[in-house]
Amino acid sequence: MSSQQPDSTTELEEQLVLLMRGLGTRSVLYQQNVGSSLGLHNNDFMSVDILREKGSLTAGEMAKITGLTTGSITALIDRLEKVGYVRRENDPHDRRKVIIVPEYENKEEVSDTYQPLYESMIKLASSYTKEELTLITQFLSKASAVIEEQTRHLSDSRSKTSS
Amino acid sequence: MSSQQPDSTTELEEQLVLLMRGLGTRSVLYQQNVGSSLGLHNNDFMSVDILREKGSLTAGEMAKITGLTTGSITALIDRLEKVGYVRRENDPHDRRKVIIVPEYENKEEVSDTYQPLYESMIKLASSYTKEELTLITQFLSKASAVIEEQTRHLSDSRSKTSS
Repeated sequence: MSSQQPDSTTELEEQLVLLMRGLGTRSVLYQQNVGSSLGLHNNDFMSVDILREKGSLTAGEMAKITGLTTGSITALIDRLEKVGYVRRENDPHDRRKVIIVPEYENKEEVSDTYQPLYESMIKLASSYTKEELTLITQFLSKASAVIEEQTRHLSDSRSKTSS
Repeated sequence: MSSQQPDSTTELEEQLVLLMRGLGTRSVLYQQNVGSSLGLHNNDFMSVDILREKGSLTAGEMAKITGLTTGSITALIDRLEKVGYVRRENDPHDRRKVIIVPEYENKEEVSDTYQPLYESMIKLASSYTKEELTLITQFLSKASAVIEEQTRHLSDSRSKTSS
C-alpha cells in the first residue's frame, strides 16, 4: 500500500482512514499476543491495560470502558488478582467502593515484552525532523481523541438501549 | 498532552511513542465496544476482524496471528458461524484444509456501527494539506509494519518455546 502514490487529496484521505483501521487491527493483535506471551487467559491483558492510562477504576467503570459485561470483568479481575497483576482495594475517597489497582507495570516480564516494540518505535521516530514529529504527534493526539469519543458514543448507546 | 510543547527532539520522539501506545489502547477498547454493540460474545469480533484484511484463513493460522489457543479459536468460530458472521469452507487450493470465510463485511449492522468513526476520521483527514497527508500516511504505514513485525516476533517466540 505504501508504494502506491495516490494523486488526489480525496484518495489520500481515504488511504489515511484505511491505514488507521489497519493500525487498529494490528494494535489489537499485538496486544493479544502480549497477553499470550505472558501466559494470560485469552484477552485478559488487553482489557486490563486500560488501567495503565486511567489509573484505578471500579469494576463497573472497567465494564463500561471495555465493553465487557460486569460478569466477564469480575472473572477477569479474579484471574489477574491470582497472578498478581492487579489487586482490589477500598477506594480511599469512597469506602463503599472497591477499585482495581494495576500491579503489572513493575513486573519485569511485562516491561521485557514491550521493550522491543518501544525500541523499534523510537527508531522510527528518530528518522523524522522536529517539524515532522510535531505534525505527526498532533495528528496522533487528535486521532486518539476521535477514537475515544466514538468508543464513548458506542458505550453510551448501549446503556440507553439496556435501561 | 497535546497542550504540552516539548522543546527537544528526544522529548517529541518519546511523546510519539506514548501516543502510539495510547492509540493502540483506544483501538482495542473501540473494537471491544463494537463487538458488544453487535451483541457478540466478549472479544469475538476483535479476533475475527483480521479476516477483513487477510482474507480467509485456517483456524490454525488464525490462532497463530491472534495469539489465541486453537481451542479458543474453534469455540469462537462456532459462535460466529451460528450468527452468520463467518462460514467454514474447504480450501479450493487444498481440499484437506478448512478455511474460515468472513461474511460480516456485508452485514448492515456492522457497516452502520463503523460509519460514525469513518466519518470522523475523514473529517480529521480533510483538515490537512496534501503534503501533510502524504507525510502522515507514510508514517502510519511504517508504524503498522513495525507493529506487525513485533506481533510476528512474539508469536514466533511462543512457537519456539512450546515446541
